[in-house]
Amino acid sequence: MEDLRSIGFTAERRDTPGHPMVVAHADGPAGSPHVLFYGHYDVQPVDPLDLWARDPFDPVVEKAEDGVDVIRARGSSDDKGQIMTFVEACRAYNAVHGALPCRISILFEGEEESGSPSLKPFLEAHKEELKADFALVCDTGMWDRETPAISVGLRGILGVELTIHAANRDLHSGSYGGAAANPIRVLARILADLHDADGRVTIPGFYEGVEETPTQILESWKSLGVTNENFLGPIGLSQPSGERGRSILELVWARPTAEFNGITGGYTGEGFKTVIAAQATAKVSFRLVHKQDPAKIRAAFQRFVEERLPVDCRADWGKDHGGSPAIQLSYDAPYLSKAQAALSDEWPKPAVMIAMGGSIPIVGDFQTYLGMESLLVGFGLSDDRIHSPNEKYDVESFRKGQRSWARILDALAK
Amino acid sequence: MEDLRSIGFTAERRDTPGHPMVVAHADGPAGSPHVLFYGHYDVQPVDPLDLWARDPFDPVVEKAEDGVDVIRARGSSDDKGQIMTFVEACRAYNAVHGALPCRISILFEGEEESGSPSLKPFLEAHKEELKADFALVCDTGMWDRETPAISVGLRGILGVELTIHAANRDLHSGSYGGAAANPIRVLARILADLHDADGRVTIPGFYEGVEETPTQILESWKSLGVTNENFLGPIGLSQPSGERGRSILELVWARPTAEFNGITGGYTGEGFKTVIAAQATAKVSFRLVHKQDPAKIRAAFQRFVEERLPVDCRADWGKDHGGSPAIQLSYDAPYLSKAQAALSDEWPKPAVMIAMGGSIPIVGDFQTYLGMESLLVGFGLSDDRIHSPNEKYDVESFRKGQRSWARILDALAK
Repeated sequence: MEDLRSIGFTAERRDTPGHPMVVAHADGPAGSPHVLFYGHYDVQPVDPLDLWARDPFDPVVEKAEDGVDVIRARGSSDDKGQIMTFVEACRAYNAVHGALPCRISILFEGEEESGSPSLKPFLEAHKEELKADFALVCDTGMWDRETPAISVGLRGILGVELTIHAANRDLHSGSYGGAAANPIRVLARILADLHDADGRVTIPGFYEGVEETPTQILESWKSLGVTNENFLGPIGLSQPSGERGRSILELVWARPTAEFNGITGGYTGEGFKTVIAAQATAKVSFRLVHKQDPAKIRAAFQRFVEERLPVDCRADWGKDHGGSPAIQLSYDAPYLSKAQAALSDEWPKPAVMIAMGGSIPIVGDFQTYLGMESLLVGFGLSDDRIHSPNEKYDVESFRKGQRSWARILDALAK
Repeated sequence: MEDLRSIGFTAERRDTPGHPMVVAHADGPAGSPHVLFYGHYDVQPVDPLDLWARDPFDPVVEKAEDGVDVIRARGSSDDKGQIMTFVEACRAYNAVHGALPCRISILFEGEEESGSPSLKPFLEAHKEELKADFALVCDTGMWDRETPAISVGLRGILGVELTIHAANRDLHSGSYGGAAANPIRVLARILADLHDADGRVTIPGFYEGVEETPTQILESWKSLGVTNENFLGPIGLSQPSGERGRSILELVWARPTAEFNGITGGYTGEGFKTVIAAQATAKVSFRLVHKQDPAKIRAAFQRFVEERLPVDCRADWGKDHGGSPAIQLSYDAPYLSKAQAALSDEWPKPAVMIAMGGSIPIVGDFQTYLGMESLLVGFGLSDDRIHSPNEKYDVESFRKGQRSWARILDALAK
């Protein structure tokens, strides 16, 4: 907080039922946008401690095995180091220009690694104070060492557990085979019906709200060098299995899926039992993109199943899992293109807009509680070992990260 | 053996590595057929003994709860009582006519209830001695109290365990969903493809060797009073699920099936894991009828699966289960119609030719080792409690069973 105050922020500790929040504000020129910067100061546990080369909470700048200068400490990349790129950017901007380029609020959380239990009530209780034009979130990574990235899409998820019931008990297939309904057969038929020959999901209305990714974004993804060989090769595959005619990155970043995560029914032990089971169960999940509505898809899938139930069979639905829509920022929002240009000026290669398989819940929370979009920029690298022993943050990430934020703030204010 | 010798048989005990066999022979008139009668003298364990109303090895004739006279003892129905219907029939025939009507050999086994480990080597070693024109096997039941039955069909079985492999490890569906092949999806598609909309199995060549059941046999099955209500109702179903347009009894007695006895893949515990599994497994069994060849069907199913494997997926085949062809006696064999007429003369209702879901291995063994068909006639009733405490055999089964065999022997000799 002293650091923040020394740059002209009003910084306060705000207690919560868990770890406290840090909230800070600094005014900007009239007419400039208001941004809320978010990061988290908590870290993952350091265990196993004996795998660390040195004290994880005594940061040091050292040469890594590959000769690169790194900051070695727990949280150096996730997320203390990233937070400090922004704080130092503000300090530098202030030192050079005598003022910040826009109105800036800051929110540092201390429970991100433990599910953010205090965050939602805090956002709700401080809506007026924290609502800005948009948020800057620094908890993501670069595409690679030379290519900065802005994350604009996060797929949502809906998980459904479906059990098909037929006879009222397990049957002997010698006595009943050919006469009695087999729930594994019914389930297999339903699951097989879920995709057409082109790999598209066949539930009516499933693609409602799915948008085509703009051509220039698809082109920029092509330039990232992801190939069937380097993406699928390491897991023993050679061809993408999803919707025909789309690239790997489009499939995992911008297209919805229906996946079967588990299936069980009848006798599954060693050897054989000639049983016709009374029931069979599948766990089915849908990855959602853009404006797909989890509730609508849940209902449409249920209709899809019920239309395919033969006489004497019924479907039971377990507890749903997830049910969160995708987060998709508009590719042509002005603040996005400004940030992209600023990042491209700083780094060797132009910034790319990417998407993610996993989710960053804060982005949805900002949308839900503050009605505010987020700009996700970060400088982590895939070899930072976050959550693991010997976490590091490249000095170059730290240095050029600061310069990046200074450029972004400057660009946003114009 | 004394009993048998007293009717003119040469009876001998033949030792085996397990329980001994009893083999007996009696000559018949020149030109008469040679029959081999088979039964077994061993029984199932009597446990739990405290559920027996009296000593299971001290047989008594008593009135059952429904007022019917029964012989109460372990083995009274399965199979000592049934054996004795034949021995007493021979004694009576001999007493009345002074000779037996045809040449008769007898084989009593002592290991039927424990998998008959000594039987095959014994048949092989005594091929010349035991080979007859056909066998008489008395180890089955009546259709009901008034309707005698000849079992002419026993479905065979082939069980196959099929595992579909895709990626070389389990994957996270967020990172790989849409790009990586899902073996549950591949397996579901294969299983769904195995039946067409009319419930027929789609493996090319699957119905090779399957014969249509003669109309008069189907008509006689119709008269047995099996309905969807009384067959499927007790197990909570209302409609047969097999090949369209065929009756329940035809489906379970005379039609082949493909059944899914077990399936497993991915995460099957409580809750959800968004995993794309590396593999998925199904246990598939085929009930076989008539002349279907298990080896041909095994090979055809393997081709069926391999034609449906997408790129990057492979199929692994576990140990097969079963692999025994069906046993189907010719409905119009002269000895069958003679036996049917003889039984129909004895009982209130005409004898029916039925089939069975389970198998009686001795029938296959006689075909394999002695090249000899079997006539399966027995007088057990469904309420005989075989293998259970308080096993019984109706005195009426015993009395009319003897008369039935006398009539059959007489008819066969003509």
